Amino acid sequence: MTFKKSIKFPLILVNLKSYYETIGSKAEELTKIAEEVADSTGVCIGIAPQYMDLRQIDRFRIPVFSQHIDPILPGAHTGHVLAESVSATGAVGAILNHSERRLELSSIEMIVERLRSLGLISVVCASSLRVAMAVASLDPDMVAIEPPELIGSGIAVSKAKPEVVSGSVEAIKRINSRIVVLCGAGISSGSDVHAAIQLGTSGVLVASGIVKAPDWKKALLDLATSAAET
Amino acid sequence: MTFKKSIKFPLILVNLKSYYETIGSKAEELTKIAEEVADSTGVCIGIAPQYMDLRQIDRFRIPVFSQHIDPILPGAHTGHVLAESVSATGAVGAILNHSERRLELSSIEMIVERLRSLGLISVVCASSLRVAMAVASLDPDMVAIEPPELIGSGIAVSKAKPEVVSGSVEAIKRINSRIVVLCGAGISSGSDVHAAIQLGTSGVLVASGIVKAPDWKKALLDLATSAAET
Amino acid sequence: MTFKKSIKFPLILVNLKSYYETIGSKAEELTKIAEEVADSTGVCIGIAPQYMDLRQIDRFRIPVFSQHIDPILPGAHTGHVLAESVSATGAVGAILNHSERRLELSSIEMIVERLRSLGLISVVCASSLRVAMAVASLDPDMVAIEPPELIGSGIAVSKAKPEVVSGSVEAIKRINSRIVVLCGAGISSGSDVHAAIQLGTSGVLVASGIVKAPDWKKALLDLATSAAET
Amino acid sequence: MTFKKSIKFPLILVNLKSYYETIGSKAEELTKIAEEVADSTGVCIGIAPQYMDLRQIDRFRIPVFSQHIDPILPGAHTGHVLAESVSATGAVGAILNHSERRLELSSIEMIVERLRSLGLISVVCASSLRVAMAVASLDPDMVAIEPPELIGSGIAVSKAKPEVVSGSVEAIKRINSRIVVLCGAGISSGSDVHAAIQLGTSGVLVASGIVKAPDWKKALLDLATSAAET
Repeated sequence: MTFKKSIKFPLILVNLKSYYETIGSKAEELTKIAEEVADSTGVCIGIAPQYMDLRQIDRFRIPVFSQHIDPILPGAHTGHVLAESVSATGAVGAILNHSERRLELSSIEMIVERLRSLGLISVVCASSLRVAMAVASLDPDMVAIEPPELIGSGIAVSKAKPEVVSGSVEAIKRINSRIVVLCGAGISSGSDVHAAIQLGTSGVLVASGIVKAPDWKKALLDLATSAAET
Repeated sequence: MTFKKSIKFPLILVNLKSYYETIGSKAEELTKIAEEVADSTGVCIGIAPQYMDLRQIDRFRIPVFSQHIDPILPGAHTGHVLAESVSATGAVGAILNHSERRLELSSIEMIVERLRSLGLISVVCASSLRVAMAVASLDPDMVAIEPPELIGSGIAVSKAKPEVVSGSVEAIKRINSRIVVLCGAGISSGSDVHAAIQLGTSGVLVASGIVKAPDWKKALLDLATSAAET
Repeated sequence: MTFKKSIKFPLILVNLKSYYETIGSKAEELTKIAEEVADSTGVCIGIAPQYMDLRQIDRFRIPVFSQHIDPILPGAHTGHVLAESVSATGAVGAILNHSERRLELSSIEMIVERLRSLGLISVVCASSLRVAMAVASLDPDMVAIEPPELIGSGIAVSKAKPEVVSGSVEAIKRINSRIVVLCGAGISSGSDVHAAIQLGTSGVLVASGIVKAPDWKKALLDLATSAAET
Repeated sequence: MTFKKSIKFPLILVNLKSYYETIGSKAEELTKIAEEVADSTGVCIGIAPQYMDLRQIDRFRIPVFSQHIDPILPGAHTGHVLAESVSATGAVGAILNHSERRLELSSIEMIVERLRSLGLISVVCASSLRVAMAVASLDPDMVAIEPPELIGSGIAVSKAKPEVVSGSVEAIKRINSRIVVLCGAGISSGSDVHAAIQLGTSGVLVASGIVKAPDWKKALLDLATSAAET
């Protein structure tokens, strides 16, 4: 499977959410560090900044994702997030259906198709094994298993619910072996990443584990080194 | 009443919505033209581009607005639009409660307060006279009267529903004389702007009337010249 | 001001929400007790049961309210709550914009108008003084001040935020003296009701304070006796 | 597969939506006719009335469905539709994710599970083949294929999109052979029902085709006779 030039696996995808710590120039600062860590470890690190920071972040060599896309076509839609506009920033894809920004089922189908037609990667979040299987039927590029009760908990999904992760990997691959599986929720250390990859995933989604870390470089290096060594 | 340095009245506020014609570099092109027209006519023209274009557009000398703000504080809110992040782009304010992106009543109160605390202007849309009065009680900086049935119709609110416009101006000023009143929906010609100002508004919201015009410069000049002469 | 035959003030309006304790026959049981208490104290007690219980509850002599109405006209709207259908159950009105079921601003205007045209009472909830003023401009029959942070808290709004209650009463009456003002959130004792009426309201909204009480009759008698004596 | 006593296949499930023609006593009238037609033809006819009519309709011998369920547990949820309360009316199940009342993906999973634990049938609507496959992974009792563009069109899905219907039947059965497949959208005549059953479905969802028919009995007889003969 090949995406835009810059995506490799394992992938560490850092979701900046609406955190105060990573607005504007701060997002650029974190991305610069991520770029250095990616260069030094050879591990692919992606960044999902806030919408208004997409274009700035794209000036770096690492892949950029939108945090969401709205189920619309171009037109009279004030205040919506249009796939074409995300594409125009240079972003390579988008996270969809995050538990903090859920989508109606048929909207996910529409957006996955629209992203594909624009050459963009879809990373659809799933809150459970069954939801992961459902999502797999919509033919996204990646599925990210994220049990919402572990998000921001500091308890890694790859350690707290290993059977959900490995079961989802297996079930998704059975439905569509082309789909790349990530996992997220509570990821904050290299050993969490190690566990995730051992369970068959191709990488992790991480947010507060990096954004709220006292030392971004150290935190990213910890994850990326583990990813490189697993 | 004084806002950030660049706002003057009458104001022509151009909402780029999610139109295909004004994504990315095209939004910059339209803004450049708007800047020239603003310079040559002395009329203030504001631009509300898509989120990912806010920062680019802010490089011009004319005021930039977000098309929406979400009712959140900084934090774990994937895919939301945070007031602080809009502020960091240099934007001077935001349109709220557009009929294509409606907000719950108490969310409008929260966002108006948050924008004010950040030194940003709130432009709250109202679909009717009563809604305009309701909005006025929430103490926004501006209220834009926009009957949704006229949006994109080519039939200007200032000509089709003059009594709604003048009635709203009067009712809003009675509640809070500090509030600036705009009107929108169906605005596409200089005479629509003339009528709007005659009815007591301080300017217009316009979208397809400019974005879909075959000649942006001509269309903007028409509106701005009328605004200057009224 | 006169509503359907059964409404008098002070009014105690009991919102059964989606509580397990008051489904179906249990809602009837509570209503029977409320009817007895209303008869013995002469105080008007209204009940807002779940949608599917509206018709059963209407067999009692006390006024029944829907907990919500959707902003629709009759037609192809699967799973929505139509004002005409609520009216057909015999209900006298509806609670709108409760903090657990918020409405977009322009939807409130539409529903208030539709209820009036059907002879139904609108009780619009407001989370703050400013929101109460905004709601008053939409010309509902009643406004219920309900600061969301006190709902279910056991701390009565009439004691914790007396200035919000009295300020709202005053501000609402200034906008439209015809509007009846209630208050809610945290109401559970007769002294809470007493305080509410002293602050100028015409009654209270109460939910867990009654539904979760170990003895419904005792709890209702406490509120109603206080209301009668104030 | 066995459901509550009254469900047999082929099933004709009549969705009364929020139509003016079928409020309250009119819903009872239509249900009485449906009961007669079910008796005379031996075909199972279900009715999905508005919430406030669920209990009345349940007095008839034919199965009753809710048009929607909200993703909540019992508690402080004003204006929501609780599965337990639907169950208490005697209803046998609920339609979910109708294109006029869409649900977020993970909400569908939650509601399907809750309905099952209460012994209620879940009929989940799907707008396309892929969505039907996704829904099948959530393990509902029935999936109803309803391309939204054909709803209310008078053009039957079973004739306009036979390949979507037969493809969905096949794909759903491959995922979970226990799931019963219905189809809907544009169904109004016996020949539409015949086509649907020929394509492998176990029945139809119908709304305006019955509700708006000049003669309910004739219209229902036409559908049921075809179903019996196919």
